[in-house]
Amino acid sequence: MRIAVLGVGLIGGSIGLAARRRADAQVCGYDPDEQVLAKALSIGAIDSAASDIDSAVKDADVVFVAAPVGALAETVRQALAAAGRDCVVSDVGSTKRMLAEAGADERFIGGHPLAGAETSGVEHAREDLFEGAVWYLTPAPNSTGVLYERLHRLLTTIGARPAAIDAETHDRLLAAVSHLPHVLANVLAGQAASTLGGAGERRVPAVGPSFRDATRVAGANSAIWTDIYTSNRDALIPAIDAFAAALGEVRAMLAAGDAQAVTAWNDSARRDRDELLGAGLTGGPVGELRASVPNRPGVIAEIALALGRAGVNILDMALSPSEDNRQGVVALWIGGDEHLQRAEQLIGELGFPVARA
Amino acid sequence: MRIAVLGVGLIGGSIGLAARRRADAQVCGYDPDEQVLAKALSIGAIDSAASDIDSAVKDADVVFVAAPVGALAETVRQALAAAGRDCVVSDVGSTKRMLAEAGADERFIGGHPLAGAETSGVEHAREDLFEGAVWYLTPAPNSTGVLYERLHRLLTTIGARPAAIDAETHDRLLAAVSHLPHVLANVLAGQAASTLGGAGERRVPAVGPSFRDATRVAGANSAIWTDIYTSNRDALIPAIDAFAAALGEVRAMLAAGDAQAVTAWNDSARRDRDELLGAGLTGGPVGELRASVPNRPGVIAEIALALGRAGVNILDMALSPSEDNRQGVVALWIGGDEHLQRAEQLIGELGFPVARA
Repeated sequence: MRIAVLGVGLIGGSIGLAARRRADAQVCGYDPDEQVLAKALSIGAIDSAASDIDSAVKDADVVFVAAPVGALAETVRQALAAAGRDCVVSDVGSTKRMLAEAGADERFIGGHPLAGAETSGVEHAREDLFEGAVWYLTPAPNSTGVLYERLHRLLTTIGARPAAIDAETHDRLLAAVSHLPHVLANVLAGQAASTLGGAGERRVPAVGPSFRDATRVAGANSAIWTDIYTSNRDALIPAIDAFAAALGEVRAMLAAGDAQAVTAWNDSARRDRDELLGAGLTGGPVGELRASVPNRPGVIAEIALALGRAGVNILDMALSPSEDNRQGVVALWIGGDEHLQRAEQLIGELGFPVARA
Repeated sequence: MRIAVLGVGLIGGSIGLAARRRADAQVCGYDPDEQVLAKALSIGAIDSAASDIDSAVKDADVVFVAAPVGALAETVRQALAAAGRDCVVSDVGSTKRMLAEAGADERFIGGHPLAGAETSGVEHAREDLFEGAVWYLTPAPNSTGVLYERLHRLLTTIGARPAAIDAETHDRLLAAVSHLPHVLANVLAGQAASTLGGAGERRVPAVGPSFRDATRVAGANSAIWTDIYTSNRDALIPAIDAFAAALGEVRAMLAAGDAQAVTAWNDSARRDRDELLGAGLTGGPVGELRASVPNRPGVIAEIALALGRAGVNILDMALSPSEDNRQGVVALWIGGDEHLQRAEQLIGELGFPVARA
């Protein structure tokens, strides 16, 4: 099988490595950045380097366009123009409806692997990047079945789990669970800065991890995110509108002082999150422990090591240092009541105050 | 010095322990729950247990009301009625303007220690709970100076860092950095549940840690949070309104497809968060690493131990398991470029793929 990869960064390079080693494919790469292209060749991500899109795509059975979102549509267009009649062209962009025009071509099937980030560099490419990862495919009504089947088989061979979804649903899902959370984090960071500034404070008081967690993705790499925000705005704007409407309902509950409604809303948020994150899959409900620890090197290791030795798996973990960075709170999420009890005991034995949250 | 503590849970019990051991105080406790009161006595959090508020407060120099927010105003009122003329009465509630009526009494000074949670139980009380913690005090214009000074000195003696702030600013700050983030987490969880449900999905696809982080505090303990939301609604509603307005501006940028404005907004959110969380204090800018790890017990320990041995301090950490729980991504925040490089190298040597985010 001959594969062309247009754009050989982290994702494109990993496709090349995986396809060469696992699918015994011949991989030809192209990248507008010659240094990146040379690097991809030197680490074995591609068999050969092409000097332009046409020569890369010529004779290919499968083409992956792994260009940044901003250059995606044009690169896909060029790839389709250069590709043969029996060649499937796909991409790896984070939003899918923007390629609707390409979808009119029966050889195009959009894709989006849920792995890595778009621009982290070919030097981090790995053969197993897609191992077990969901890889969304967005075939259009007129996509060719035999080409879809070829792409699907290749993705399975390199370890991914392809899942068909229509482009609109894909973009709405991603807006709900990724793009909107990024927007909220940004807005919250800006609002806190102006509220604190107005009160003459420069730092967030150590009120707990909520602000830290809620703004963790604030200001994510603009080189990637400006493209994502703008290319998915058709799905993101309705998500923002729905959020604003729901926020308005909460406001009304509060204005009415309706404690019962507030409790019901709060309880339902907990159930929603638990269900969405599959909290039930881990041998029982997930419980949270909070331990107070001095903020010094090695303290996380002590806890994690004690739990690891006892066979207790840490499902999730968050640290919040105190304002002066001298101590902090480690929140740990553990699956199953027995493991939770064991973890609480072990952490207590290490001398750290610990409580269930 | 004689101290009365009304409500001997985690906070009240810790005040008792710290005041007895560090300030050589005589502590009398009262709690409507007799079992809790007996427990506080047995662990040495109080010297004596009173059967009602009046006898607890009689002859006290300082009274701390550590009742749940819902019972706070009434308990403060009773304490003031029973307290002598030279007694300072304070509280530890999360919102402060609700006690405005009490503030008319020159003996009342509101307080809020940024430590622990209100209802985690006296069995977790500790002498050092307030060590290094900010303890907001909200004196009213007519509060007595000598009583303020007594309270301030006592708090310093038990290890806290008292900071005077007016009640309105306190509540606005807490709304911005704690209460609003909780509201957003709840609304986001609910919206994602309905979007995914509409698309026939039950679980959040593994798109990265943003949704997990953004909803971490969703559905926090209703027994505490319904009171907080409703008691601070005067500050929370304007915060919600400001948030909705700022969200509207982002919506407008997106609707206009204004990529330049989106980039500027995103970049400024990053600067705001870095500054608010004091990213500059840690020996250089804070950098983020992301490592892919198998999801098994002990893996966090391996990483944390290697970094700890090398003297690299982990400032913050977040795990995101993959959808099938077989592997996951560990995000690590490290201060200072030298430590960041060292951490990247050490994690790579452990065999985990790692990249700067």
